[in-house]
Amino acid sequence: MESKAQVLYDFSAEPGNNELSVREGETIAITNQNIGGGWIEARNSRGEVGLVPEDYLEVNPAQPFTSGGNAATFDLSFFDSHVPTPAIAASTAPTSNGNDPWAAFDNNASGGVSNNWPAQPEGTETGKTSSNAWNSGGHGHPQAYQGPGAEDDEWDEEWDDVKSSGGYAESEAGDAGAMNRGGAHGSSMKIALNKFPGFSKSGPELYLLSKQAAKGTKLPIYIGEVGPVWAYPDYQLDCVVADPKKGTKMYGLKSYIEYQVTPTTTNKPVNHRYKHFDWLYERLLDKFGSAIPIPCLPDKQVTGRFEEEFIKMRMERLQAWMSRMCRHPVVSCSDVFQLFLSYKDEKDWKTGKRKAEKDETVGVMVFSTIESEGLPDLDMTEVEQKCEQFNRFTKMMDDGVKDLLNIGNEHWKRCTGPLPKEYQRIGKAFQNLSSVFISSGYEGEAALTDALTAAGKTYEEIAQMVAEQPRKDLHFLMETNNEYKGLLGCFPDTIGVHKAAIEKVKEGDKLVAAGKISSSDKTTMSKRASTMSYALQAEMNHFHSNRIYDYNRVMQQYLEEQVKFYEMIAEKLRHAHSRFTTM
Amino acid sequence: MESKAQVLYDFSAEPGNNELSVREGETIAITNQNIGGGWIEARNSRGEVGLVPEDYLEVNPAQPFTSGGNAATFDLSFFDSHVPTPAIAASTAPTSNGNDPWAAFDNNASGGVSNNWPAQPEGTETGKTSSNAWNSGGHGHPQAYQGPGAEDDEWDEEWDDVKSSGGYAESEAGDAGAMNRGGAHGSSMKIALNKFPGFSKSGPELYLLSKQAAKGTKLPIYIGEVGPVWAYPDYQLDCVVADPKKGTKMYGLKSYIEYQVTPTTTNKPVNHRYKHFDWLYERLLDKFGSAIPIPCLPDKQVTGRFEEEFIKMRMERLQAWMSRMCRHPVVSCSDVFQLFLSYKDEKDWKTGKRKAEKDETVGVMVFSTIESEGLPDLDMTEVEQKCEQFNRFTKMMDDGVKDLLNIGNEHWKRCTGPLPKEYQRIGKAFQNLSSVFISSGYEGEAALTDALTAAGKTYEEIAQMVAEQPRKDLHFLMETNNEYKGLLGCFPDTIGVHKAAIEKVKEGDKLVAAGKISSSDKTTMSKRASTMSYALQAEMNHFHSNRIYDYNRVMQQYLEEQVKFYEMIAEKLRHAHSRFTTM
Repeated sequence: MESKAQVLYDFSAEPGNNELSVREGETIAITNQNIGGGWIEARNSRGEVGLVPEDYLEVNPAQPFTSGGNAATFDLSFFDSHVPTPAIAASTAPTSNGNDPWAAFDNNASGGVSNNWPAQPEGTETGKTSSNAWNSGGHGHPQAYQGPGAEDDEWDEEWDDVKSSGGYAESEAGDAGAMNRGGAHGSSMKIALNKFPGFSKSGPELYLLSKQAAKGTKLPIYIGEVGPVWAYPDYQLDCVVADPKKGTKMYGLKSYIEYQVTPTTTNKPVNHRYKHFDWLYERLLDKFGSAIPIPCLPDKQVTGRFEEEFIKMRMERLQAWMSRMCRHPVVSCSDVFQLFLSYKDEKDWKTGKRKAEKDETVGVMVFSTIESEGLPDLDMTEVEQKCEQFNRFTKMMDDGVKDLLNIGNEHWKRCTGPLPKEYQRIGKAFQNLSSVFISSGYEGEAALTDALTAAGKTYEEIAQMVAEQPRKDLHFLMETNNEYKGLLGCFPDTIGVHKAAIEKVKEGDKLVAAGKISSSDKTTMSKRASTMSYALQAEMNHFHSNRIYDYNRVMQQYLEEQVKFYEMIAEKLRHAHSRFTTM
Repeated sequence: MESKAQVLYDFSAEPGNNELSVREGETIAITNQNIGGGWIEARNSRGEVGLVPEDYLEVNPAQPFTSGGNAATFDLSFFDSHVPTPAIAASTAPTSNGNDPWAAFDNNASGGVSNNWPAQPEGTETGKTSSNAWNSGGHGHPQAYQGPGAEDDEWDEEWDDVKSSGGYAESEAGDAGAMNRGGAHGSSMKIALNKFPGFSKSGPELYLLSKQAAKGTKLPIYIGEVGPVWAYPDYQLDCVVADPKKGTKMYGLKSYIEYQVTPTTTNKPVNHRYKHFDWLYERLLDKFGSAIPIPCLPDKQVTGRFEEEFIKMRMERLQAWMSRMCRHPVVSCSDVFQLFLSYKDEKDWKTGKRKAEKDETVGVMVFSTIESEGLPDLDMTEVEQKCEQFNRFTKMMDDGVKDLLNIGNEHWKRCTGPLPKEYQRIGKAFQNLSSVFISSGYEGEAALTDALTAAGKTYEEIAQMVAEQPRKDLHFLMETNNEYKGLLGCFPDTIGVHKAAIEKVKEGDKLVAAGKISSSDKTTMSKRASTMSYALQAEMNHFHSNRIYDYNRVMQQYLEEQVKFYEMIAEKLRHAHSRFTTM
């Protein structure tokens, strides 16, 4: 059955790539939606068939997923009704600001931001069409899109222990969230501010005016060389995600992939499915999201062709995500994270799971667990300035990272597409000329023709090297920047919580005058805004030190591989050169 | 004044190159015809403006050159009426076989080829639109198109000594020919078979049945290791074309460029203008064209912007042409070539010129000056086989060379266009990220930001290296292949003379029976066809040995520069890498 699609933007086909040029507003027929890699095969009104980037099209909404026989279908409206945060009908336009998480703060620093969370593309169709990994262009890094043909176990909503947990709705909302996260628009978090009906319109004042003392260990903040810092553990936790294995359930009717997670502390492996990671993500987001950017998990994939590639890619990204979480002093020490890394028995796991899902110190209440007792209260102006500074920086870095991802994506496309094709053609042309020369019947031709054939083969080898190189270097640069894109996409939410708190504190006098709060409440609010600011500063310092480490490491790796690449080409060409003789 | 143009073929704009996508049949408005490099600036019906390859357009013939203020205009029909060879209205389509000089012989080896010279695009508009140098694509190697703004002296038809020579019409035809030669379609020669009215329908039998003994020294053919060879002089002549100087005439109203030509024999420089080279070319073509491929001179250029580049390019190509002529044992020893290289005084020059223009041993009669006395007569079957073999080889090599030129042209375009732009963007993205990092306010950032800036600058340097590289290596590979394209384009004519002669000899018995020739005439014809075959074999052996030398040399040069290029990139990246620190 053939669907129609509306072309959203002009697209110029790259010659020789089986692409199809289309114009905005054109209607085309979808001939194959299962191409993968962010591409769709389509036919225009002139009968020409070729590939068009998925993101450039709006597939007829009446029958969006009819051609993918294996693809799981699901009712999006179902999630809508369960997701508490407002769902907006976000446009899929790459240039649209409709769901830019930064838009709310742009040039609007002192505006009345309180509960107006940046629009999040949750529970909408956005996540569906923007499922590419690195940029909004929708074509490039092929690994990012190649999921298995029937990874449908991810859409199976049943937890093995779903009946005993009582957290069904939450899990489900989480799944819907995960599906839409990590898209083209900087991966907003969903912070569970409205989780408890009694505080449904509260925002940060929930913490600012809370009478309730936090239970349990407090998270201390120290003043280090660079300013406020978290307490870092002596031993840096890490873990290895490896050994993906296919499991089955329902008498073999459904299959799933289990990854082995081995913490460096215990060295005891535990097995987890993607949905377990997703459950962990949801818990961490609920608990820490107001204070700490919790980056999204790698995208879910519904369709695709190369199962092995996809699993490898997902594993790599789960590894990166887990390592980042391990490196975070607050996250890595949390009960829920430790629970995930340890698995004694089924009973212990279920108990821990239930406990985590019932945790009430979530959302802004996480700040109540932060200890900044020894530190002086901050002036509200300073708090505001810090907040503004971080907002500016994270926004700028977000732009920079996205820019690099776009460029890298284009470069990837060139390096794996037209460039090696051209080297191959050069190689073939040399070899062809050599064959012609051999046919001359002239004596004393052999030295030249042998050398020319060898030179041609060398260029064919170079073609292959060029095509394979991005996986050896650009890939890691892209992955790191993609991770940072995810992290940076969390900051608007985190910073939004702070801005809202600042606004509330600023209203303090008015609220006292109106008799809504006492003046001691006002002092408490101020103190607590200080604590929030210390937490934000500690988090920014954590972010900065990790960033410096990560970019040093990835740039070194990139340049090292680039050097090797060019040296190897030079070496190959030197050898080819030596075969020609001067006469 | 704005011209309209019809789009002949679909063209997809390369993003970021200021190009304009156009569709076959579209009408666009020319906004600037003086862009150069084979490009025209145009506006489509939607008002979008961008560059389109000149060859993809058919400019409204009513006003073809109105927008180029400086461009010389000329009446093509004027040349038409003076050019004796049939002028065909050749299509400008790159894929058209309409004027493929090989078409006449293709799969038609024993067909009745006699006076049916392959169609030549002379005196038509073809030369105008296919004025690119290396392929029919029309964009690529920029040097090939950038002529001076007003090199109009080339269109000045007056020889300083035109009144005394009597060769006006010939010169003129030559100029028209030169203008159209070297275009996209393999540069056919114009052989002066029909020069003398009395023999207007004669063809090779002019020589085969000639009663007249040739005067002067004969050109001997020997049997060398590889078969029949020309007699090579002990000293290999060469010359240096250098030091282009602007001269003026008509009280400074007209300017021209004089090149200094210095033969290695005399070491005495003589000055020649392009039209003098063209005169020499015409004389050599008249005299030797039936036996020896006389490649065309570099194209004439009418419009363009970079006079210096153009003059340098023309000089380089005149040098290559002269060196090739010097290397030919027959051509280099000829009176007319020696006359060109020596200049005693004006009187001597004029005398020599007049003599050369009156030379009657031209066309097929050149074979009468070839001496193969000691060599056994060849069987007509063998003659025919040799001829076929050379025809096949030169056709195959012509295809191979054109293929390489097309690929090289595309590669040139990529290396000077999108590829360096991409490296530049990568460089800018690194530097931009560095600036963002500097703005973080975090301490201990300097090592990373310095290294990142340096890496960014390195990629900008690489961008420049990439863009400049084709002039250092690909240029020479292209020039050599372009020269061979010109040479190979002469073979269909040369081989055509031989095929016609073979046909005549085959008809020998019939002609004797019909009483048209005597049986002794028939024997003479056979003998002379042998001589022609020896000459062709000698010429092919000359071609092969030069080809082996040329391709060895140019491949060595190409690969050497390629090695240097990749080594330098690796070195730069190694340095950039060393600036990052592991922590």
